[in-house]
Amino acid sequence: MNQKKLDKLLEEEELDSIFIYDDSYSNQNLFYLTNFLAPDPFVYYKKISKEPKMILPKMELSRAKECSSIDVLALSDYVEERDYDEAIKKLVSDSNDVGVPLDFPLSSAKKINNELKPIDVSKIRRNKSSQEIEYIQKAQKVAEKGIKKAIEVFKDAENIDGKLYYDNDALTSSDIKFVIENELLKHNAICEDIIVSSGQKSANPHKSGEGHLCASPIVIDVFPRLRKERYCGDITRTFSLEQSPEVEEMYDDVLEAQKEAFENIESGISASEVHQAVVDLFDEKGYGVQDKEEDINFLHSTGHGVGLDVHEKPGVSEKDEILEEGDVITIEPGLYGKEVGGVRIEDLVVVKKDSYLNLTNLEKELVL
Amino acid sequence: MNQKKLDKLLEEEELDSIFIYDDSYSNQNLFYLTNFLAPDPFVYYKKISKEPKMILPKMELSRAKECSSIDVLALSDYVEERDYDEAIKKLVSDSNDVGVPLDFPLSSAKKINNELKPIDVSKIRRNKSSQEIEYIQKAQKVAEKGIKKAIEVFKDAENIDGKLYYDNDALTSSDIKFVIENELLKHNAICEDIIVSSGQKSANPHKSGEGHLCASPIVIDVFPRLRKERYCGDITRTFSLEQSPEVEEMYDDVLEAQKEAFENIESGISASEVHQAVVDLFDEKGYGVQDKEEDINFLHSTGHGVGLDVHEKPGVSEKDEILEEGDVITIEPGLYGKEVGGVRIEDLVVVKKDSYLNLTNLEKELVL
Repeated sequence: MNQKKLDKLLEEEELDSIFIYDDSYSNQNLFYLTNFLAPDPFVYYKKISKEPKMILPKMELSRAKECSSIDVLALSDYVEERDYDEAIKKLVSDSNDVGVPLDFPLSSAKKINNELKPIDVSKIRRNKSSQEIEYIQKAQKVAEKGIKKAIEVFKDAENIDGKLYYDNDALTSSDIKFVIENELLKHNAICEDIIVSSGQKSANPHKSGEGHLCASPIVIDVFPRLRKERYCGDITRTFSLEQSPEVEEMYDDVLEAQKEAFENIESGISASEVHQAVVDLFDEKGYGVQDKEEDINFLHSTGHGVGLDVHEKPGVSEKDEILEEGDVITIEPGLYGKEVGGVRIEDLVVVKKDSYLNLTNLEKELVL
Repeated sequence: MNQKKLDKLLEEEELDSIFIYDDSYSNQNLFYLTNFLAPDPFVYYKKISKEPKMILPKMELSRAKECSSIDVLALSDYVEERDYDEAIKKLVSDSNDVGVPLDFPLSSAKKINNELKPIDVSKIRRNKSSQEIEYIQKAQKVAEKGIKKAIEVFKDAENIDGKLYYDNDALTSSDIKFVIENELLKHNAICEDIIVSSGQKSANPHKSGEGHLCASPIVIDVFPRLRKERYCGDITRTFSLEQSPEVEEMYDDVLEAQKEAFENIESGISASEVHQAVVDLFDEKGYGVQDKEEDINFLHSTGHGVGLDVHEKPGVSEKDEILEEGDVITIEPGLYGKEVGGVRIEDLVVVKKDSYLNLTNLEKELVL
């Protein structure tokens, strides 16, 4: 199926063939097309309407045959020297219009000395199969389990003058990250950098959080990758361990914005319309949006695609990208004030014909 | 210091200026030059002998100023639209010879429409400062602590007919990975994919291991990254939980090969000589090396550089790369037989003027 999607793309782009040369830990397109996970670079090559092949170091042949249904060739059987550039030159020598992914390095292109056309291969990863959606939902469930563990700790924590304590010790961001990561590990998932950010520090959406936790607000953003299946989830919840009318008001407004976004989702609509609905609602309520700055602002886009990458196509921002059935996207409006901190609520949904399916089940309770 | 190293490289490569455009989670050159960790792409730009600057989304400005001493500019103050390609075009417009890193994408180069010269920026990361060595050693110590936890479990495990049990349950690769990862997490480190591989499965050095553990041999390879400091360690140990003369012989030979490699290390020597010493010793003992295949073979290079990447320059292989003072490299000879499995011993060392300093302290005991 994935190979057919690539054929269709090659046809659209009027290309004879395409190759990818990279390791498949970092290159999700390569993993998507081969199902073979390797720490060292190898070559995937496909001519339009033909079966693809892979060229690998000899050491990897048996492992590749176990994982992948694609024909494999040993590099050393293909070229005299251990020289991938030479192998690629040989591969593409009878092809006129050769494509490469957008991230193909300029330095390699110069060595291969062929007119290569960079195309957006990641496009074919947008429309998720039911198997892929199952994996993404599995990752999302693992993330939810992690946050539930954090909630258990919060419920036993004590708030003294706005700071949290557990068993008479200061409760820190690291403590909560550890609890969540531990739960991810149990389910064979990993997250590069969980966000557990509180108080004024949470006003910066990219701060992963550190030090003694404040009682309100606490933003937790978890985006695990399943180690085996390689698919990711992404969820954010915001908590308050004390009464705070200001945070509560922001929370209600973010929740309303999320609902507004949800109501706009359907295949065929521009993602920018979904984003604009959020912007308009926040604007109406007097928050800072886009270039208008207020005490409390909406600082980022409404969401992004999730799959083999935590951030992939389509973006849900001011850019005009048409939502398609099978897109898996986050909807994550947020509000950030230097004084009060941040509030963000993020769910992961599948775009359907006239609506959406929410892959996220964790409740949305601000005050624990 | 890092900026000065880059200046020197620009001079050698006869370049006026250089830019990097990427996120600094995946691009270690960018992190090395900016000390700013960001999940979204931004621009670093430096003219030769001038102070560098960074161009960032507005949202990231305050965080960047906290982390980095480099001057920052908001993208939106620099170009009308939110358009990095346009910003880069503007930056390089008065520069004739503009460099980019080797991994700079062909697709971006085509848009920028300037003659860009890819150069190997990662070279400047080779000679580690004492601060960097301290971070690498810290990462290595964390890895050692992880393996020690695994050893504790092995010591309480029971060997029944060549398979391991713990508290009457089958002991699996996942169990041991979990024990190690948990220890890494406690020290705020993360490892993409720990190897805990046993029995015949360990004959494949890239198999991360799965299922019920065999008593012998058990290969454990841990290469954690410190989340805060970003530097990595890398260590492998092989264990046997039963008497096995064949594994013991391989172990002694691998240990001898490692010593042989160590004795060859000094600044100024070619890394290929260090590798060749290992190849020669294994060849002498009748193992398969390079193109000669036997029942038991040496399948990979002797080592690789470690720093912000787990695999970086210099390689310790048949390629001719001169070792320099301050290079941090692994020395990891290994032997692999389809019937017997694998044995690998890996330490992490710093190249010194006439010798080396081993950053690894964990004992090398095969039989526990």
